Amino acid sequence: MEVSLKNNVSRQASYDCWLQYEKIRDHEYYNQYVAYSRGIAVVGDSPILKSALDELERGLFSMFGQKSTVYNEAAKEASIIAGTFESIPLEDYGLNKASLINMNEEGYLLKAVKDEEKIIVAAKSDKGVLYAVHHLLRLLQLRESLKQVNIVESPKNQLRMLNQWDNMDGSVERGYSGQSIFYENHKITTNLERIKDYARLLSSIGINAISINNVNVWKVETKLITNDFLPDVAKIADILRAYGIKTFLSINFASPIEIDGLQTADPLDPDVKTWWKNKVEEIYRYIPDFGGFVVKADSEHRPGPFSYDRNHADGANLLAEALEPFGGLVIWRCFVYNCLQDWRDRSTDRARAAYDHFKPLDGDFLDNVILQIKNGPMDFQVREPVSPLFGALEKTNQMMEFQVAQEYTGQQKDLCFLVPLWKEVLEFDTYAKGEGSKVKNIVNGSLFNDKFSGICAVSNIGNDENWTGNTLAQANLYGYGRLIWNPDLTSEEIAEEWIRSTFGQDPSVVEQIKQMLLDSWSIYENYTAPLGVGWMVNPHHHYGPNIDGYEYSVWGTYHFADRDGIGVDRTIETGTGYAGQYYSPNKEMYNNLETCPDELLLFFHHVPYTYKLKSGKTVIQHIYDTHFKGAEQVEELIEKWNGLRGKIDEIRFVNVSERFQLQLKNAKEWRDQVNTYFYRKSGIADENNRTIY
Amino acid sequence: MEVSLKNNVSRQASYDCWLQYEKIRDHEYYNQYVAYSRGIAVVGDSPILKSALDELERGLFSMFGQKSTVYNEAAKEASIIAGTFESIPLEDYGLNKASLINMNEEGYLLKAVKDEEKIIVAAKSDKGVLYAVHHLLRLLQLRESLKQVNIVESPKNQLRMLNQWDNMDGSVERGYSGQSIFYENHKITTNLERIKDYARLLSSIGINAISINNVNVWKVETKLITNDFLPDVAKIADILRAYGIKTFLSINFASPIEIDGLQTADPLDPDVKTWWKNKVEEIYRYIPDFGGFVVKADSEHRPGPFSYDRNHADGANLLAEALEPFGGLVIWRCFVYNCLQDWRDRSTDRARAAYDHFKPLDGDFLDNVILQIKNGPMDFQVREPVSPLFGALEKTNQMMEFQVAQEYTGQQKDLCFLVPLWKEVLEFDTYAKGEGSKVKNIVNGSLFNDKFSGICAVSNIGNDENWTGNTLAQANLYGYGRLIWNPDLTSEEIAEEWIRSTFGQDPSVVEQIKQMLLDSWSIYENYTAPLGVGWMVNPHHHYGPNIDGYEYSVWGTYHFADRDGIGVDRTIETGTGYAGQYYSPNKEMYNNLETCPDELLLFFHHVPYTYKLKSGKTVIQHIYDTHFKGAEQVEELIEKWNGLRGKIDEIRFVNVSERFQLQLKNAKEWRDQVNTYFYRKSGIADENNRTIY
Repeated sequence: MEVSLKNNVSRQASYDCWLQYEKIRDHEYYNQYVAYSRGIAVVGDSPILKSALDELERGLFSMFGQKSTVYNEAAKEASIIAGTFESIPLEDYGLNKASLINMNEEGYLLKAVKDEEKIIVAAKSDKGVLYAVHHLLRLLQLRESLKQVNIVESPKNQLRMLNQWDNMDGSVERGYSGQSIFYENHKITTNLERIKDYARLLSSIGINAISINNVNVWKVETKLITNDFLPDVAKIADILRAYGIKTFLSINFASPIEIDGLQTADPLDPDVKTWWKNKVEEIYRYIPDFGGFVVKADSEHRPGPFSYDRNHADGANLLAEALEPFGGLVIWRCFVYNCLQDWRDRSTDRARAAYDHFKPLDGDFLDNVILQIKNGPMDFQVREPVSPLFGALEKTNQMMEFQVAQEYTGQQKDLCFLVPLWKEVLEFDTYAKGEGSKVKNIVNGSLFNDKFSGICAVSNIGNDENWTGNTLAQANLYGYGRLIWNPDLTSEEIAEEWIRSTFGQDPSVVEQIKQMLLDSWSIYENYTAPLGVGWMVNPHHHYGPNIDGYEYSVWGTYHFADRDGIGVDRTIETGTGYAGQYYSPNKEMYNNLETCPDELLLFFHHVPYTYKLKSGKTVIQHIYDTHFKGAEQVEELIEKWNGLRGKIDEIRFVNVSERFQLQLKNAKEWRDQVNTYFYRKSGIADENNRTIY
Repeated sequence: MEVSLKNNVSRQASYDCWLQYEKIRDHEYYNQYVAYSRGIAVVGDSPILKSALDELERGLFSMFGQKSTVYNEAAKEASIIAGTFESIPLEDYGLNKASLINMNEEGYLLKAVKDEEKIIVAAKSDKGVLYAVHHLLRLLQLRESLKQVNIVESPKNQLRMLNQWDNMDGSVERGYSGQSIFYENHKITTNLERIKDYARLLSSIGINAISINNVNVWKVETKLITNDFLPDVAKIADILRAYGIKTFLSINFASPIEIDGLQTADPLDPDVKTWWKNKVEEIYRYIPDFGGFVVKADSEHRPGPFSYDRNHADGANLLAEALEPFGGLVIWRCFVYNCLQDWRDRSTDRARAAYDHFKPLDGDFLDNVILQIKNGPMDFQVREPVSPLFGALEKTNQMMEFQVAQEYTGQQKDLCFLVPLWKEVLEFDTYAKGEGSKVKNIVNGSLFNDKFSGICAVSNIGNDENWTGNTLAQANLYGYGRLIWNPDLTSEEIAEEWIRSTFGQDPSVVEQIKQMLLDSWSIYENYTAPLGVGWMVNPHHHYGPNIDGYEYSVWGTYHFADRDGIGVDRTIETGTGYAGQYYSPNKEMYNNLETCPDELLLFFHHVPYTYKLKSGKTVIQHIYDTHFKGAEQVEELIEKWNGLRGKIDEIRFVNVSERFQLQLKNAKEWRDQVNTYFYRKSGIADENNRTIY
């Protein structure tokens, strides 16, 4: 019985992710704050405020073990008083609304008042109240002191979004955690409870928008915007709305043809315009606060304006005009490139494509269009430079696209904590308006004063019990939300928050896992494609090594390794000129072999294997060393994890252990294939005579 | 109307293959033989004789344009008199039965008698009569002279078999001509007419056995030997029987477990023995002349005796014991190897596997077991040595396995006439019993006096209108049947027969297509994997180049190319020892770099790119030259084919033209990827400075 009970407990823990709210067993801490849990007031009864109240009750009960008395006004018996500035008598608690003027629409105040007898949870909007409640619960869950707590906080980014790449057959493109939680058998799921639980998780980390179907919109999915499915989409939107999350749909640009048999989807055709106008009206009848459309057009065989000799601005503006009266947005993806490239053609460079396509259109988009730009110019590799489109678009709304799903970073078998990668991107200085023009200040809209902006990412969840396949991959979803809420948080802070919320307060557990998370990106990079060259993965599924897997393909992803050297010459003088897409001094830094950072050397330059890196090693020795090291580091991760046995529940322990074994196998395969490939090609022996096959 | 009529005519031609029986428009020839078509007698009324009569009537009517009067006895009004030696009064026609004693059970006599007024079509068996009728029709169709015709003929091989790799979902493993004609939707087809037409085609080329399901026996197919499906299998067997073809089934070695839930499939377990005994009895109740089982066991993840620590003889004999009372056979495949090899492991050699597994068991098999051995030690590559197992098994029935389906030889997009390849194999001298121990004399059972022997092949047909995808691939099916009937026919003879039966008598058409067919294997070899090294194909589907596609895989198929050289060392002294599996002097010929034939050099030796071939060229220059040449040759094939426009019907012209365009694309891709790969690796320039990317 004990075992099965324990299993149930930890199965629940797998499912609850970072919303564990473990019972407080520290008596001092308990006694200090238990009074707060006795009476709570949430003033107002909107669905969002109901969610806030629900979270508050649930969290407090779970941690303090007693049910709170709930008031629907700022009763004097209530210890926690939550509501908007309009609904709470701020002055009664010595608070001055004017002092909160700089807070944004989603910001909030958390403040202990009346000699710490009460905590005020106040915000401009209902959504802010919900975020504030989560903040308060997080503080308690992390066992932080609430003494004289006085927090004024606003999210740094406007749109904080997830893209589900879910298909209606139940599959998830690039999904590594089971099937879709949104669809099954070409219908919308009837398991709405799971969607609500997803919404809870997302609201707790501040996500406020989601697109619920794959950017590749296939036949059935095209009909999501018809009355076949809109009633069910509206049900999902209702659930998400109650957690402050707006619903978006990915659409098929050829919808007028495919849904209603129009002859064309030409964005300048009057019938097409009318069609979209009517379609959008129809959608808003079902979902009055519908977010808008996400569009992958003229990319990887998806239809788009190019078919009609129109450009991306024509295409996006068509939809934007229809959405504008309702406040809807068009999120237009910039992942556009020639996916039928001839490998023989060295002049075409996929890395240039987004900039080449969209920079000339800067200023041509309506102001409810946002261009969604992947963090790098290629496709979510373990190491890429930042897309030069960030900073290049001065008159166009733009947002960042990350990938929480670990497509090229271990597929949730291998551990790869991505927050450090994302931080590097956000901290990158584009010099678009001189020094300090960091990416984070572009995507938060401040540098170019964009009307709309933000960050989105491909989600990593599925219907696995623990949402993310590998339990440790929950850290990426958590970390993503926290980082885009506030990009100034450090990776360490985020990791520690997640671990303590997920696995509890044992300092040895926290330290061990934190180190593992923080090392993991570098470890993964060590045993995979070296020095920024990318790919070298198995075609189609993208897991495991295949050095020449894409070398003679149509995808524009080459390393050009020969017997003498490796790398892609993207310099201005002798290469594809890609380096010239950056502002100075980045342009010169990348363009110049001497100043190009080691980790991106092969992205920008073709060099001999004997080229000496800044580290002092030759390229070939670096390849050997990092690959031997990477596999060893995975063995160390396993040892560290084994040290945690008994300190965390068995279900989650085993879940991660199993995946580490897969990672080890993968790392050894990468090590041996990469080393053998380059030894065969270069003929240069490893200085340390380790085994190369 | 004219066009659609013409289309219908040629669609019929696509479907009829070599059984066109085009109207005789040559007056002289017509007048010479029209009398034969007036009265025909087929004595006897067995299903096979009914088929013979049907073929005869149909063919004569089609060629002479008049309906024959049919007699069921050797009436004096009949000009063609067909029947067995028992049923025809041979002496009346001056024939002496004793002189035909050396003819085998399937042999026959075709003889003009009574001053050429009559033709006698006589055989030991009904089947022989059917073959004789086909022979007579072939002579007429080829417009051969029947003057004093006097042919005594027997097939040279006993089992002349096809293996269908058809699955019950309707797919065909390695099928390039549509779906299965035998199955759809996990059921046996209701379109039995098509199966009858297939039987007609097969009987016309002497095929006398067929296994009707894939050697990989999946879940549903496992049940073919249950009463769920046996009634329908029996219907197919009825049709095939009427054309002299015995029905075999591929079985799942784990059937006792999967069908009836036994705990084991151990071949020495008494319950398992009983199970198979009962099962075989059941099958024979439905199909009294059932041929037997084809078995792929312990190969590529299929179950087999190894699971129970038994060997292949134990496994085969289990089934043989059950089949023996009914005269059934076990055809046990020798395609057994480690398909989870570690590419790092250079000591394991897949080429050795069949010999290593089966040679030690020689003599251990019951005498209704036949071992089915693929022509080469690997897997139907464009160039392989002959399997050393031929000749090594002195006390075991054995048969050859060819592949008519063009899995590795262009997939019925690219033209590759395989008769020359098969002939090379059959003419190979194993020296098993000294000089003259040719493979053809092993597989016909004569060298070791085997009780059962023969040749089988994977079929290349599907439900495409023209059966084989590429119309020219019909030549491989035709050629396979004709060659195994009589391995002494030349490739030229077979090609010419097929062309004249298929496209008519225009000498320019015949000559042009004949040259194309005869050149095609060499052309295909030119642009694909060089010098016998094999593979270099895209994983899974096996079409198109991927030089390293299998280089780091589990499949045991490597080329070991590095910056200095390429090839697999299979010598006795420094390699895997595979060369030692041959008899002298083949052993020494292959083992010795100086005597190893160029075309197999890289199969047996790892050599530097600068190694000089017997041709005088270096290996690297040979690679460049053959690859440039191969692609050019495909352009020449296209030119030649274009020259036939208007001389053959448009449907078949276009069918082939379209495939030639695919072949050209494929050949160029091979050329460029192979040349670039080896240029990058070797750094050695093409002597003729042609474009290498």
